[in-house]
Amino acid sequence: MTTTSGATATKAPRGSYTFLREAADIEQLVDRYDNFLFDCDGVIWSGGVALPGVVSVLNKLRARGKHILFVTNNASKSRRILLDMFKRFGIDATLEEVYSSAFATALYIKNVLHMPTDRKVFVMGMQGLEEELQLAGYTTLGGTAPETVKIEGTDFAPLLVDGELDHSVGAVVCGIDTSLTYVKMARAFRYLVRPGATGEVRAGEVGGGCHFVCTNSDATFPSKEYTWPGAGAVWAGLREAARREPVLIGKPNQPMIDTIFADGSLNRARTIMVGDRLNTDIAFGQRGGVDTLLVLTGIASEEDVHAEDAPAVPTYIVNGLGDLDVLP
Amino acid sequence: MTTTSGATATKAPRGSYTFLREAADIEQLVDRYDNFLFDCDGVIWSGGVALPGVVSVLNKLRARGKHILFVTNNASKSRRILLDMFKRFGIDATLEEVYSSAFATALYIKNVLHMPTDRKVFVMGMQGLEEELQLAGYTTLGGTAPETVKIEGTDFAPLLVDGELDHSVGAVVCGIDTSLTYVKMARAFRYLVRPGATGEVRAGEVGGGCHFVCTNSDATFPSKEYTWPGAGAVWAGLREAARREPVLIGKPNQPMIDTIFADGSLNRARTIMVGDRLNTDIAFGQRGGVDTLLVLTGIASEEDVHAEDAPAVPTYIVNGLGDLDVLP
Repeated sequence: MTTTSGATATKAPRGSYTFLREAADIEQLVDRYDNFLFDCDGVIWSGGVALPGVVSVLNKLRARGKHILFVTNNASKSRRILLDMFKRFGIDATLEEVYSSAFATALYIKNVLHMPTDRKVFVMGMQGLEEELQLAGYTTLGGTAPETVKIEGTDFAPLLVDGELDHSVGAVVCGIDTSLTYVKMARAFRYLVRPGATGEVRAGEVGGGCHFVCTNSDATFPSKEYTWPGAGAVWAGLREAARREPVLIGKPNQPMIDTIFADGSLNRARTIMVGDRLNTDIAFGQRGGVDTLLVLTGIASEEDVHAEDAPAVPTYIVNGLGDLDVLP
Repeated sequence: MTTTSGATATKAPRGSYTFLREAADIEQLVDRYDNFLFDCDGVIWSGGVALPGVVSVLNKLRARGKHILFVTNNASKSRRILLDMFKRFGIDATLEEVYSSAFATALYIKNVLHMPTDRKVFVMGMQGLEEELQLAGYTTLGGTAPETVKIEGTDFAPLLVDGELDHSVGAVVCGIDTSLTYVKMARAFRYLVRPGATGEVRAGEVGGGCHFVCTNSDATFPSKEYTWPGAGAVWAGLREAARREPVLIGKPNQPMIDTIFADGSLNRARTIMVGDRLNTDIAFGQRGGVDTLLVLTGIASEEDVHAEDAPAVPTYIVNGLGDLDVLP
C-alpha cells in the first residue's frame, strides 16, 4: 500500500490517496464496503468491450454479498434497454443494479418535488427519459412523439392550442435529445416562463409554475469516432431564453447520489464510488459523502490527481477494476 | 431644453442627458447630424402600426438630405423582405436604408474576416441570413435546406459523409432559427471543433479552423402575444458543447456599428442612433462612438435612465420620434 499525502509530494494533491497494489490491500478494501457504485464507460467497459477481469470481479463481489449499482448519466436509454447493453458486454446485471440519470430524474420529480401525477411532464429528451417518467406515473408530452406542428418563418401561432398554452404541464425535463427541434424548445420555453399563480400554488401544481429539471450537465456525448452535443447543449438554449437555472440531477451533481440513499437502505459509510473521472465520478462521490476509488483505465491519470486544479482527489487508486480479480 | 446632470438629480443617472421639448431644440438636433440610425420596433412602429407622426418625420428628414438607416437585429428576413414590411407600415424605405444583423454578418465575414468565397458557410438560421450570405458570394449549407438525415437513437453515423465531415465549411453562422434541429446543431458542432491545420492556415481557409459568428445575442424574439426563444437561445447549445465564444454582430455589439462606418463614407461625429432600449440601442450607439437619442414609445422610461444599474445614458431624450414633426 502506497500512501501519498499532500504534505510530502512535490506536486501536492489537495488531499491524500492510497494507491492499492497488493492483494492484501484489495482484500481490506472489499471488506470495508458493502455497496459498490460503478461508473461504466472507462471502468466496466471501454471502446466497445468489457475491460479485462471486470466480469470476474463483479461475480466475486456478488458472491460476497456486495450490493452493486451501475451509475450512469446516459439518459438516452431506459434501464430496461441499458440492461441489454450490459448483456452485450457479457455482464449479467439486474434492473435493480442499473441507476441512470433518467431514472434518478423521475424519482426526483416524484419523491423530492412531490409533483402530482395529474401534472404532465414536457420532455426534451429521448425514449429512456420518457419511459422512466412514465414508469413513475407521469404522462409525457414532447419527447419522441411525432411533431405535428410546423412554424413557417416567424409565425408562432401554430404553437398555441386555441391561442393558449397547455396549462397541465408541471415540469419541463431535459436530457440529450437527438430529435431536438425549435418547436420543442419553444414549447418548453413558454411553460418555463408561465407565471405561477399568486399565493400558495407552487410549481408543478394546478395553476402554479413549472419545474425545470435536467438529467445531466455533460456538454458533449461520446460516440465511437467523435463527440456530439450532449444534454448540456440541449438545455443551454432554454436556460438562456427563460433565464432559469435547471435542477441538475446526474453526476457530478448531488441529487442523483441523494436519491440513491433516499430510502435509507444503504449506509453511506459502507459505500464506495468507483470511477475514471475526477470531475464527475470522484467529485460526485465526495459530494455524496462516500469514499471513492479511481481507476486508471479511462480519462484520468495519477498525474491528474496531482494537478493544482484537480477537481477532486480519490480515497484510493487502482490501475484498473480488473486488479480486484486477485480476490479468491 | 431641460438638461439633467448626475450632480443634481436625486437618483443620479451615470451621465447627463438633454430632454428636448421645444421646437427650437428639435431644429438644433436635426441641424447637428447628417446620419440618423433608427431602431425600428418601439421607435418607428409598435404593436403592428407605425407610430404617430413617424412617416412624416422620415419624409422631412429625407427632404433635408439626411441619410437614414434602419438598424435591426431581425435576421429572420432578408433586407428585400424587410422592405415589404416597411411598405406595410406605410414607409417607403430603400434597400440601402435597411441594415439588418444578417446583412452586417455577411459583410463582417467578407470584409473583416476576409473569408474566401470558395469556403462554404454552415447556417443555423433562416431565409434572411441565407440570402444575405449568398448575396455576399457564399454557398450556404444547413439553413432552410430540407433535412435529408435522421438520427435513430444515438447512432450518429448518418451525420458523416463517407465517414468524414465536410471540410469545405469555413464558418458556422447562427441567428434565430425556427427550423433548428439537433442534426443541424450536431453538424455545426463538428465544424466548430475541427482542429485547424498547424502553421499559418487560419480559420476559414482550406485545412484551417472554422469561424463562429452569430447575428445577435437576443435570448428572446417578440411576437404579437408572446416572446419565443431568440438567436441567443439557438447558439447557446453550440457555445456550451464546443466551448467557443461566437463573434456577436448585432446590437448592442460593436461589429454591426463598425461595419456601418467601415467604408468611410459616414462621419461618426455627424451620426446619431435613435432607439427605445438602453441596453441595446443606446449602449450600441455609445460603443460605436456616436450620440444617441432615446424615445419613450418603447421599452425604456425616463426613470430607467436614472436607475443605478442603467446600462447606458442617452445624449438626448424625446417623448417619441413623432415630436420631430414640429420641423417645418
